[in-house]
Amino acid sequence: MDLSQIYAPIQEDMARVRDTLKSISRVDSAWLAEQLNHVLKETGKSLRPALTLLSGKSFQYDLTYLLPMAVSVELMHTATLVHDDAIDKASTRRGQRTINSIWGDEIAILMGDYLFAKAGEYVADTQTPRVVKLFSQTLGTISSGEIAQWRAAYNPSQTRDDYFHRIYGKTASLFSLSTQAGAILGKAPEESVAIMKEYGDNLGIAFQIVDDILDFTSTEEAMGKPVGSDLTQGTLTLPAMMLMERYPEDNPIQKYFETRDQTHVAAAIKMVLDSGIVEECYRVAAKYRDRACLNLKSLPKAESRESLTNLADYIIRQGT
Amino acid sequence: MDLSQIYAPIQEDMARVRDTLKSISRVDSAWLAEQLNHVLKETGKSLRPALTLLSGKSFQYDLTYLLPMAVSVELMHTATLVHDDAIDKASTRRGQRTINSIWGDEIAILMGDYLFAKAGEYVADTQTPRVVKLFSQTLGTISSGEIAQWRAAYNPSQTRDDYFHRIYGKTASLFSLSTQAGAILGKAPEESVAIMKEYGDNLGIAFQIVDDILDFTSTEEAMGKPVGSDLTQGTLTLPAMMLMERYPEDNPIQKYFETRDQTHVAAAIKMVLDSGIVEECYRVAAKYRDRACLNLKSLPKAESRESLTNLADYIIRQGT
Repeated sequence: MDLSQIYAPIQEDMARVRDTLKSISRVDSAWLAEQLNHVLKETGKSLRPALTLLSGKSFQYDLTYLLPMAVSVELMHTATLVHDDAIDKASTRRGQRTINSIWGDEIAILMGDYLFAKAGEYVADTQTPRVVKLFSQTLGTISSGEIAQWRAAYNPSQTRDDYFHRIYGKTASLFSLSTQAGAILGKAPEESVAIMKEYGDNLGIAFQIVDDILDFTSTEEAMGKPVGSDLTQGTLTLPAMMLMERYPEDNPIQKYFETRDQTHVAAAIKMVLDSGIVEECYRVAAKYRDRACLNLKSLPKAESRESLTNLADYIIRQGT
Repeated sequence: MDLSQIYAPIQEDMARVRDTLKSISRVDSAWLAEQLNHVLKETGKSLRPALTLLSGKSFQYDLTYLLPMAVSVELMHTATLVHDDAIDKASTRRGQRTINSIWGDEIAILMGDYLFAKAGEYVADTQTPRVVKLFSQTLGTISSGEIAQWRAAYNPSQTRDDYFHRIYGKTASLFSLSTQAGAILGKAPEESVAIMKEYGDNLGIAFQIVDDILDFTSTEEAMGKPVGSDLTQGTLTLPAMMLMERYPEDNPIQKYFETRDQTHVAAAIKMVLDSGIVEECYRVAAKYRDRACLNLKSLPKAESRESLTNLADYIIRQGT
């Protein structure tokens, strides 16, 4: 099942989300407009707004509040990417040149701040302080998660707990905001809000594991950024951890962290691909997919429930 | 009149603001705590929270909402300073080493984001979507103002309109948020909210003009950063503009922008000090101080009204 089928219940409203995002770059200043247009024109799969709308669709679906929320989570995501790219000195993202590579780190910092501000304006339009608070807490979780990742870079002594804590912070927390906010704004009962939180938390973990697998198995063309970027930046992901566990001695990752000689990254990628680690990682991701969907069956509406289930499957199938 | 006298009506509550700010650095992660403590321990004059509380004190003073708002404006201010220092590659601020100079630009970006997130949490605690929206719009104004400043750097052809527009964005907009939010959360009538906006707008402009004067007239010891920093970074402030207007030919600022030879900065500082420009700039600032206070007399409560008036005078007297 492809994304357009999964998004069918919210298809028209996703178009409104995209139109609203595009409208943000219509500002008086021509060069600000150029920068905003560059960063907002290509929104990828728009998973996070889709999660908000599909979650809201399970309850009282009121676009007055759900539309700004959906726009807000996408803007927060985009803002964090702009800052991440400046931090990582990344030159491409989604196949496009990054803000920092075109206009410099300074503009990337300020443009990220501007996008956070816009995200804040839209979340204010939900008129719901509980959601504003959750939104802000999530940004705090993302930022401190990124600080943790930055501090852990090139450190070979990390546990899986460290890994899961980190990917919760940098990815799952925003998935969780997206699904919870959809439920809260849909006036869902608290048990249903909890189910949507569980779904978002676990789906986000599954998504990030798959993303981390793809950094080993995909191509630069498909990803829009170089293969092995995580390892190159010193980030230990699940496949890399498994490789270090299997080959505690004479491991190319250890060697790369010590020497920063890129040939070790290539060797590590080859070893991961030849070792069955990829399949094992997909099994871990599938476990989180299952946890995500465990309690969805108690949701009242079949159509959005099926889309949420199918979306979890879709995420796991990426790259397989 | 000194600040402690001006702050007298809100003295105990300012202590609560400072305690709350300090409490933010009590987090589990020891190194995050260290970074937060570094940035939050020295809050300077805390003008922005004082403006919120004094503004609120003119109406229905309810700390349930005013305290988080006061904390929020100080956090937003601090976050923007952390990002500004990374952008400007500044090594000292308020006499302390900057985050970027100790832990690097990457941590400065993420720490600024974390502080924005915390600011967002506190503004959510006001339970007032109108204030959340104003808060977010202000962050957008500040960021786009900073982008404008960055783009205008080392450009000698700027007008006074450009200057006032820029300092409204980078400084006055946050003063205006602080005073407006105090009035809104104090359930002030709309005419009074408008008066507090007028006060914040104009006081912020006056404050920034004086700050720009001090960059010429003060000492590194008093400012906690090198004299002439603005000019060094290519930022044309009011004294610099006046100098260029008076000496359109053979001007050291023009020469510095062309050559980046620091001796021209020293020459420009000397010319500004010898020219009467400083006094002229103070007269412009005083005009904005007068505009700020013009309609304060219609506010109902004498004590906070007098503090607001005295605070405007205090700001103008800085460095004189």
